[in-house]
Amino acid sequence: MKRLPCVMLALVSSSLTATVLADPLPSWNEGDNKSAIMDFVEATTDPASDDFVPQQQRIAVFDNDGTLWSEQPMYFQLSYALQRASEADEEALDTPVKKAAAEGDLKTVMEAGNEGLLEVVSISHSGISVDDFQDDVRDWLASATHPNTDRFYTDMVFQPMLELLSYLRDEGYQTYIVSGGGVDFMRAFASEAYGVPPENIIGSIGDTEVVDNDGELELIKQPGVTFIDDGNGKPLAIQRHIGQRPTIAVGNSDGDVPMLRYTTEADGPRLGVLLHHTDGEREYAYDSDSSFGRLDQGLEQAATDDWTVIDMAQDWRTVYQEAP
Amino acid sequence: MKRLPCVMLALVSSSLTATVLADPLPSWNEGDNKSAIMDFVEATTDPASDDFVPQQQRIAVFDNDGTLWSEQPMYFQLSYALQRASEADEEALDTPVKKAAAEGDLKTVMEAGNEGLLEVVSISHSGISVDDFQDDVRDWLASATHPNTDRFYTDMVFQPMLELLSYLRDEGYQTYIVSGGGVDFMRAFASEAYGVPPENIIGSIGDTEVVDNDGELELIKQPGVTFIDDGNGKPLAIQRHIGQRPTIAVGNSDGDVPMLRYTTEADGPRLGVLLHHTDGEREYAYDSDSSFGRLDQGLEQAATDDWTVIDMAQDWRTVYQEAP
Repeated sequence: MKRLPCVMLALVSSSLTATVLADPLPSWNEGDNKSAIMDFVEATTDPASDDFVPQQQRIAVFDNDGTLWSEQPMYFQLSYALQRASEADEEALDTPVKKAAAEGDLKTVMEAGNEGLLEVVSISHSGISVDDFQDDVRDWLASATHPNTDRFYTDMVFQPMLELLSYLRDEGYQTYIVSGGGVDFMRAFASEAYGVPPENIIGSIGDTEVVDNDGELELIKQPGVTFIDDGNGKPLAIQRHIGQRPTIAVGNSDGDVPMLRYTTEADGPRLGVLLHHTDGEREYAYDSDSSFGRLDQGLEQAATDDWTVIDMAQDWRTVYQEAP
Repeated sequence: MKRLPCVMLALVSSSLTATVLADPLPSWNEGDNKSAIMDFVEATTDPASDDFVPQQQRIAVFDNDGTLWSEQPMYFQLSYALQRASEADEEALDTPVKKAAAEGDLKTVMEAGNEGLLEVVSISHSGISVDDFQDDVRDWLASATHPNTDRFYTDMVFQPMLELLSYLRDEGYQTYIVSGGGVDFMRAFASEAYGVPPENIIGSIGDTEVVDNDGELELIKQPGVTFIDDGNGKPLAIQRHIGQRPTIAVGNSDGDVPMLRYTTEADGPRLGVLLHHTDGEREYAYDSDSSFGRLDQGLEQAATDDWTVIDMAQDWRTVYQEAP
């Protein structure tokens, strides 16, 4: 920054001001929920407010699947894993769950829970370096399309959430992703899709080994799971990685409830936001009966902890960006 | 930033320029090592240079014990743990290593290795919330003094390293601590001591449980170790937490060798810095025979990978800040 002449700084300054004067959330319909979010952000960033939060403590954490992009008819990472499983050699299918995945038997995979999902993901990880794995994910994202919308998966990020992320960063918040998805998978696309740098992306972790490859250290992904960043794993991951309680937490499923509780049950101003998928026409309508992103306990907890519950059909003017 | 009027931005701009025109490393003696560091930083931050590194990729990782502050006659975290062990109730001393620690029998503790050290640390963790633990660490740091120097432990940070951290941040580098020490222990003091925010502090992790305490989620520290951030653990922790290879790595012991190799054996401009404790008069002189911060293999690897080896006695004009 120090090399910018003052005139350029002035331009930056005025363009930022313009951004702030315009509605930062144009894809959100006016109403109590949009007001609750903007009132909270204004109060926590106004030095004259009793609810002012110093910039270093302005932490906003977001779930990914079902919160920043869609998660139906299955987690997009699972779609990737199933496609690679169907292309895998026989000897790579060394468990019943992996065999089921290769045959497209989603039911068996689902019955194995989160561990099962990450086991299937491991087919496309095993014996591959982190860098090569991420290249493969990028290849898939550049060609695969969603079965219902025919969009690229990265064109199924939620426009209102992109606006919320930008708005929070403009107001001095650090934005983090805290997702049950694999951290290496997310880092292949999330920085470009959401403007969140790799070090602010937290997720589940597959076993990884440090290998000396002809005098060069490489990280090689292994089968097996080191850490699942879901449920109570989310507050643990936030403590390990960020080291302070968030000010704002945004999620959409019961797996996000501990993250939202950990955020909003602390002292000081806190905001919990729960996205309710109510829009069967523009996206999907689901909650307590869904295999992916099940939301049941979270709706009760929202009342107890006074979370802002977003009704997608009501509160969002737009769901997806215009397809390119 | 956007609320700053242009005149204030101009002041910031010119004061930063002044900082840069002055020697950013006044506590470093002139010589090949100081030049190697400054030449590298200038090349990686000059857009006209072939070795230019975009700001988002400017990552500098530092070990803590023996790199940013002293680690003799024992790790400072161990001094804290031993004092709390000597004050602990009998039932808390439920392993031979813990009993030895309570009796000040350092030899037995050391023979148990890193796991033993973290086991002793767990005495002062068990059944305490992360917040309460960090309050206790701060109480100790505010009163305990070093057996040889009589300084507070936080007055034994290395002035030349404080200057290097500030210089790198002024040049657009993100500075991280990647230490074998416990992350909750370090976060109790390191942000204030080094200007590194909590989310940039990576360390060893003790088992932690999410507990519902009368309708409020709390993180309660448990005995047992989740992860030891030493040796090959350091590249793994860097990948999990930061998600990209560092540009600069600074360490002082064999436990830092994988972190320096992971950094410098990648493509592109990379700098490895190894601090050799050669100053028995102002600090301590030790390497291959030391129980703490053993440096043996690292000196050979430094030649292979062309790391800059700092000779503390030769290269540092000052070791510690003037005591307040």
